[in-house]
Amino acid sequence: MKLHWSPRSPFVRKVTIAAHELGLFERLTLVRSVVAMTAPNRALMRDNPLSKLPTLIADDGQAICDSLVICTYFDSLHDGQPLVPRDEPARWQALQRHAMANGFLDLLTLFRNERDRPDGARSQPHLDGFAVKLEAMLEYVNTNLPAVTEGRMDLVQISFGCVAGYLDFRFPDIGWRSLAPQFAEWAAWFDTRRSAVLTVPQ
Amino acid sequence: MKLHWSPRSPFVRKVTIAAHELGLFERLTLVRSVVAMTAPNRALMRDNPLSKLPTLIADDGQAICDSLVICTYFDSLHDGQPLVPRDEPARWQALQRHAMANGFLDLLTLFRNERDRPDGARSQPHLDGFAVKLEAMLEYVNTNLPAVTEGRMDLVQISFGCVAGYLDFRFPDIGWRSLAPQFAEWAAWFDTRRSAVLTVPQ
Repeated sequence: MKLHWSPRSPFVRKVTIAAHELGLFERLTLVRSVVAMTAPNRALMRDNPLSKLPTLIADDGQAICDSLVICTYFDSLHDGQPLVPRDEPARWQALQRHAMANGFLDLLTLFRNERDRPDGARSQPHLDGFAVKLEAMLEYVNTNLPAVTEGRMDLVQISFGCVAGYLDFRFPDIGWRSLAPQFAEWAAWFDTRRSAVLTVPQ
Repeated sequence: MKLHWSPRSPFVRKVTIAAHELGLFERLTLVRSVVAMTAPNRALMRDNPLSKLPTLIADDGQAICDSLVICTYFDSLHDGQPLVPRDEPARWQALQRHAMANGFLDLLTLFRNERDRPDGARSQPHLDGFAVKLEAMLEYVNTNLPAVTEGRMDLVQISFGCVAGYLDFRFPDIGWRSLAPQFAEWAAWFDTRRSAVLTVPQ
């Protein structure tokens, strides 16, 4: 399988951690692909016209273009404990918690994009709106922690861990560990996992 | 169930069409909620700190905060033909096509947001990037059409239909029907469905 990949994207990290957890990582060929909202990547767009990462090309040539869908696809390749529970209500409940973590990542990437715009194209009302939601989401993750477990991590643990890693990587100055101390403690456990160590953003 | 709702959001429309298709609409109490990137909605944030629509409150008080997750939850409430196939590989293939339509909606909402910013906060490189991807996505939907069927619509049909409706609603000036004529023909069928008629954006 070919994976359009970047060492910086938290959505790519979700997928590579999942591949490590499931023993599928060795089957991936990573292709470094650079994306930016202002610079559509024409080579990537042949596989995914949205020009977004991660994009996986399965061995039969089919493109799979979203981190949740790729994790679902990975679950169809093995018979072990799935990343996403197969039975209801556990399934929708896991998808709900993943959606909150993923929405937090969307918020953080938009916030960073806005912050890094040049003068004359930056919107203070947008920055203010993002800051209000960032604070509320730190409180959410701090009070909705995934379990600490010994075995394979599931999609909820992986996605919350990618939030913590992205906060460290792109928002080191906001002091999120003091604002969300239980989440910081949980993240300290996440950071010891082999799949997390192998995928630290850089 | 309580649904934070807007007659303008294509993501809310996806969920309300799904509810009509599944015979669940009468169980929803709609709460008009206004969201904007620059104006977090504090009342909505008590249920969803991301301040996003749609947000569903289940009868037991649990919040479900993403259109795909809400559709998955709806599928757990009935025993008929599901919106999302239950077996692989049909399941991940449907989720993949939904992800493309949903990514198109994300692109269109960001494009509109950028277009409507005041002078001094608008970025031409962002607008140019969105336009390139919009054109590529019109070609994608035009050549990856969902089926035309008689029975209940599934998640892929619903999400593609919401793309067409949102293009009509917010991008009436781009002539998308000439750029994607097969998609326009498919959308003409979609627009005759009762659930689509009942949810036209306004």
